[in-house]
Amino acid sequence: MLLSLKMSYKDAMGEDYKPDRPPANPALQSNSGPDATEAEEDFVDPWTVQTSSAKGIDYDKLIVRFGSSKIDKELINRIERAIGQRPHRFLRRGIFFSHRWLQDVFNVPLVIQMTDDEKYLWKDLTLDQAYGYTVENAKDIIACGFDVNKTFIFSDLDYMGSSPGFYRNVVKIQKHVTFNQVKGIFGFTDSDSIGKISFPAIQAAPSFSTSFPQIFGGRADVQCLIPCAIDQDPYFRMTRDVAPRIGYPKPALLHSTFFPALQGAQTKMSASDPNSSIFLTDSAKQIKTKACGHTDVSFHVLPLLQVNKHAFSGGRDTMEEHRQFGGDCDLDVSFMYLTFFLEDDDRLEQIRKDYSSGAMLTGELKKELIEVLQPLIAEHQARRKEVTDEVVKEFMTPRKLSFDFQ
Amino acid sequence: MLLSLKMSYKDAMGEDYKPDRPPANPALQSNSGPDATEAEEDFVDPWTVQTSSAKGIDYDKLIVRFGSSKIDKELINRIERAIGQRPHRFLRRGIFFSHRWLQDVFNVPLVIQMTDDEKYLWKDLTLDQAYGYTVENAKDIIACGFDVNKTFIFSDLDYMGSSPGFYRNVVKIQKHVTFNQVKGIFGFTDSDSIGKISFPAIQAAPSFSTSFPQIFGGRADVQCLIPCAIDQDPYFRMTRDVAPRIGYPKPALLHSTFFPALQGAQTKMSASDPNSSIFLTDSAKQIKTKACGHTDVSFHVLPLLQVNKHAFSGGRDTMEEHRQFGGDCDLDVSFMYLTFFLEDDDRLEQIRKDYSSGAMLTGELKKELIEVLQPLIAEHQARRKEVTDEVVKEFMTPRKLSFDFQ
Repeated sequence: MLLSLKMSYKDAMGEDYKPDRPPANPALQSNSGPDATEAEEDFVDPWTVQTSSAKGIDYDKLIVRFGSSKIDKELINRIERAIGQRPHRFLRRGIFFSHRWLQDVFNVPLVIQMTDDEKYLWKDLTLDQAYGYTVENAKDIIACGFDVNKTFIFSDLDYMGSSPGFYRNVVKIQKHVTFNQVKGIFGFTDSDSIGKISFPAIQAAPSFSTSFPQIFGGRADVQCLIPCAIDQDPYFRMTRDVAPRIGYPKPALLHSTFFPALQGAQTKMSASDPNSSIFLTDSAKQIKTKACGHTDVSFHVLPLLQVNKHAFSGGRDTMEEHRQFGGDCDLDVSFMYLTFFLEDDDRLEQIRKDYSSGAMLTGELKKELIEVLQPLIAEHQARRKEVTDEVVKEFMTPRKLSFDFQ
Repeated sequence: MLLSLKMSYKDAMGEDYKPDRPPANPALQSNSGPDATEAEEDFVDPWTVQTSSAKGIDYDKLIVRFGSSKIDKELINRIERAIGQRPHRFLRRGIFFSHRWLQDVFNVPLVIQMTDDEKYLWKDLTLDQAYGYTVENAKDIIACGFDVNKTFIFSDLDYMGSSPGFYRNVVKIQKHVTFNQVKGIFGFTDSDSIGKISFPAIQAAPSFSTSFPQIFGGRADVQCLIPCAIDQDPYFRMTRDVAPRIGYPKPALLHSTFFPALQGAQTKMSASDPNSSIFLTDSAKQIKTKACGHTDVSFHVLPLLQVNKHAFSGGRDTMEEHRQFGGDCDLDVSFMYLTFFLEDDDRLEQIRKDYSSGAMLTGELKKELIEVLQPLIAEHQARRKEVTDEVVKEFMTPRKLSFDFQ
C-alpha cells in the first residue's frame, strides 16, 4: 500500500462530550512551539507543504509532531459497524476522508467554510477576485453531490457580514489568543499583517455551533467534526486549546493525507501552479496532455481534485531496465492517483503487481489513469454544468437545515 | 482662559479631496514610534490619559507630538462665515466640539460607532455586558437631540454581523497594516490578544463611506470628518496612513480636549471610577454631594458628561487667605466645568474675575456649578426617559438617511 493509514481521528464520533474531562492526549493541549522551525525534514503549515522524499510526507512523524493519533484498522471496523456499510475507499486505503461520504452515512448537517478572506490576506488578489473563486469553488463542491437540505456553504466575506453570532464567536476567540500563541503555532512575525495575525480566529469560529443559530437554534453544545488535510491542523489545535476557555466543546478532527502534485509527492498540489494539478475544468485532451507530459495548456478555475502535469514516474530509464527490474509504485504519481480514484480494489492490486514486476510499462499505467480520470472529470463537469447561480445561492443562503437532532 | 485652543482640524471642511495630493503635514503620514514610551510628561493613548499637572494635559505639546494643527481664531471665523451663525461655545472657548452642533449647522449624515467589541476585548466583561452598555450609552446620545433622519448609531458587535461592506473594509485595512505598525502606534506587545492587535482596523473602517452602502449608496469617495477626543487620534493616524493605499480618501479629524475628572485635571474622567465623574443618571442630590465632596453615592450607567466628586478646588486654605489672594481658576475643576456648561460668556467672565480676586468663595463657585448642572442633567434625564427601546432600535437600524448630497 503506497500511502499508509495516516489519518487522525480524535474523540471518535459518537463519544459523549465532557467539557471538563482531562484531555486524552496532553500534546493537543499545549502549543509546543512552531512546527515550522522544528528540525524536521518535512515542512507542513497551513500555507506550505514540502518534503524532500519522493514518497511524500512522512505522516507517522507528523502524527507524533502534531500530537494526533492514527485511524487504525480497529477504528475503521468500528465505523463500519456503526454505519452498517463498507467504508469509503479513502478510508479503507488510509488516504482521504470524504465529506459527502460522511454526510451520507451519518445523516448530519454539513457546514463548508470558504475562507476567501484568508485568500485575500495571503495572496495578491482583490476582494472581488477572492470572492469570485469562492463561487467557482462552491460549484465544484456542490457538483460532488452534497444534499442541499443538509449543507450550508458560506464565504467568510459574506457570512461575517450577515451573522452577528459568527462575529461574536470570532471576537471571543480573539480575546483568548495572544500574539505569542499564534507566533508559536503559525510562525507569524512582526512584519505580518494584523489581518493574518487575527485570521486564525475566523477559521476557528465555525467549529462552534453558536456561529450558526439558523442551523442549531442557538445551541452551544453541539459537537463538531472537522475533516481536513493535516496541514490545516494548527488552526484547530489552537481552536481546541481555546474552546474550554470560552465554554464550548472542542471540535474533533479527521485528518487527511495530501493529494500529491503531478511532479511528485514532495509537495501537495497547488492551485497557483497550473502544471502541478489536473483541474476539474480540464478537458479530456488536457488531462491526457498533462498525464503524458505535454505543455501548452491553460486553466481557469481552482481545483478540488488535482493531478500533476508531468506525472512523475516510478518507471525505469529504459524499457529494457523496466521489464527487468519493474517500476516503483511508491514513487509513481499515476499509481498514487489510481489509489485515490480507482474504486476496484482487485484491479488496483493487479496494477500494482504488474507495474512492480515490469509487466506493465509506464505508458500503460498512465493510460489506466487517464481512462479512470477522463470519465470521472467528464461526469463532474456535466454535474457542474447543472449547478446554476441559483443553486449556488441556495446552498449559500443562511437557513434552517433538515436533520435529526436530539 | 483655562483651556486654550487645542483642537486640530485637518483638511478643513469643504476643501476638495485629492487622493494623490502630498500630505500637508508629513508627520501625519509616518508612525513616529510609540507615543506611550516617549519621554514626555503627559501620557496619552486611547486607553490611558495622565498628566502630573493640575492644569491638565499640555495640548500644545500634544499637537506637536501628534503632528496635528491648532484650530485658530482665523479658522473659527471661517467656520462662522460658512455656517452663518455664532459657533458653539465649545468651539468659541477652544474646549470641545459638539456632534449635534456640527449636524445642526452642516446638515450632514452622522454615524456613531459604539465599539463594544473593543470594550469586550480590553475589559473584564462578557459580550452581553459590553452590548448592554452600548444600548444605555445610545440612549444618552440620542437624548442629546440627534436627528433620527440623519443619524445612524451602531454597535460593532451588531453591525459587523449585518454589513458585508463593513467587514470587507475591515479586512482591507487589516491586510495593509502590520503588527510592527500597530506595535509602534499603540504599544502592543506579543502578550496582547490578537483581538486587540486587529481591533484598530475595526475602529478605522467607519471612516470610509463604503462601510455604509445603505447611507452612501456604494460611493467610495465621501469625505469623512471625525470629531473625537485627542487620545483617539492614534487610531486615525493609522487610518489616514492606510486610506490612500486602499483607494479611499483620508478622514479629517477634529480633536477635542479631555473633560477633566472631578479630582483635578491630571486625568480624564473615567467611567470605571464612579467618583471621578458626574453621571447623567445622577440625581440632583447626588450632583450636589459630588460637587461638595460627600461620598455614599451609587451609579449605574456610563456617562457622556462627567464632573468630579471632590471637585478639586483652586481656592485657598482659609477664607482669610482666599479673600486676600483669590482663587486659581486654572486649577479649579468647578470653574473648568462652568467653562463647558455655562452658555453665558459674560457671566463666566464675571465668575472668573470674582473667584480670582477672592470676592467669590469656593462654596459659592460650587453652588454656581451645581445650579448650572442640576437643570442641565434633569432636562437630559427627562429627554432620556422618552428614549424608548423602539427609539433606540430606530437609530440603530441600518437604513437610508435623509440629507442633501451631490
